[in-house]
Amino acid sequence: MKSPKADSDTNLLYFRKEVEKFVNERNWTKYHTPKNLIQALGIELSELSEIFLFKDIDIQMINQSPELFENISDEVADIFIYLISLINRLNINLTDAFTRKMIKNRLKYPIEEFNSGNYHKK
Amino acid sequence: MKSPKADSDTNLLYFRKEVEKFVNERNWTKYHTPKNLIQALGIELSELSEIFLFKDIDIQMINQSPELFENISDEVADIFIYLISLINRLNINLTDAFTRKMIKNRLKYPIEEFNSGNYHKK
Amino acid sequence: MKSPKADSDTNLLYFRKEVEKFVNERNWTKYHTPKNLIQALGIELSELSEIFLFKDIDIQMINQSPELFENISDEVADIFIYLISLINRLNINLTDAFTRKMIKNRLKYPIEEFNSGNYHKK
Amino acid sequence: MKSPKADSDTNLLYFRKEVEKFVNERNWTKYHTPKNLIQALGIELSELSEIFLFKDIDIQMINQSPELFENISDEVADIFIYLISLINRLNINLTDAFTRKMIKNRLKYPIEEFNSGNYHKK
Repeated sequence: MKSPKADSDTNLLYFRKEVEKFVNERNWTKYHTPKNLIQALGIELSELSEIFLFKDIDIQMINQSPELFENISDEVADIFIYLISLINRLNINLTDAFTRKMIKNRLKYPIEEFNSGNYHKK
Repeated sequence: MKSPKADSDTNLLYFRKEVEKFVNERNWTKYHTPKNLIQALGIELSELSEIFLFKDIDIQMINQSPELFENISDEVADIFIYLISLINRLNINLTDAFTRKMIKNRLKYPIEEFNSGNYHKK
Repeated sequence: MKSPKADSDTNLLYFRKEVEKFVNERNWTKYHTPKNLIQALGIELSELSEIFLFKDIDIQMINQSPELFENISDEVADIFIYLISLINRLNINLTDAFTRKMIKNRLKYPIEEFNSGNYHKK
Repeated sequence: MKSPKADSDTNLLYFRKEVEKFVNERNWTKYHTPKNLIQALGIELSELSEIFLFKDIDIQMINQSPELFENISDEVADIFIYLISLINRLNINLTDAFTRKMIKNRLKYPIEEFNSGNYHKK
């Protein structure tokens, strides 16, 4: 199978199917309860967090160090993979969930509130 | 703008642009350092985790309760939104990162190892 | 029972017994598996983390705001309570564990390494 | 200095002083902002969590495996050390914070509620 190369060409279903295949081929479904996947997400997130612990790493440094960029990208991918695994398991339509949550967020954080010099609350 | 409705129709670029617009309109870029976004991801993940704490919630229960399903979907969407925010900020091509990490994962967890009755290591 | 008032007067056993009593009186032992307690610790830690999200809160600000100080103290206490619950459950002698880990830490991070102008590794 | 050996003999001040000495000797105070310590706590907690990921480890197994018990104890000690570091930094009297939070918890979770066959809410 040809891998897509750009985020503009890759729909979510592609990721869902790739992750599902990977999990099924290894008989991991039995381990992938929602609780376990949430736990795994936390562990992957901490591995990403650890890269930055006690360090001042800004975006320029990341973009100038291919090794650092790859380490971070790998951890981000791990988080994404477990997140996809979770939505696969729960049959969540991520596009729907995203669209609905963005509507709620727009109501919760009205644009005007953050364009009048006021303090950023969240 | 018409919202896409199915994961099969929605490419990653759509999510990236939606999140970028939301963040820019609220002048939040200055808060969205990598460290802060990782911290925010952890907080959203904990809100998802809390739904399951001290409870035996299985997938059938989730699919039979629209309210529970929506709560979980909302938290999953929040995690996804911050993850997209992070890859926007770091200019990570998520398709590339995913593809490369999946190759590493296939080497690290060979299919045969998990189809011979052996214990699941990860 | 008279509550102790200073950390200099309070031995760990006091906290262990108080927490054990609290848990037993509510029949919570059945919920307090190691995994669940670790999950609960993560949730409490995130509540502490959220106080600081997207904010520049320094130590002076905390010490000058009784409300902020109490909020932070409450979250810290919650983390401590779940940690005590976990060591109760696992029969860990925390004094022993602490002493042994401090010995390992002294070997791993020799004093000289951090007093010669070198970069702080952890 | 003679190390105390039992939790019944060890007051909190002992741990606070030991951790403070360790941190000061390595010039780490500058790294130990509240946010960084909270981040470090999350990473240590994940290391503890990882021991249990995708595994059914019960208390009996932990008590029968000295190696497993030591691994878990080490991670618990790391969490405790960073927690002590945080209360040192913030000048929190942990005995006070604990006592006050336990009073709140007793009001929030009345004993009767959990001794009448009702469902456990938290």
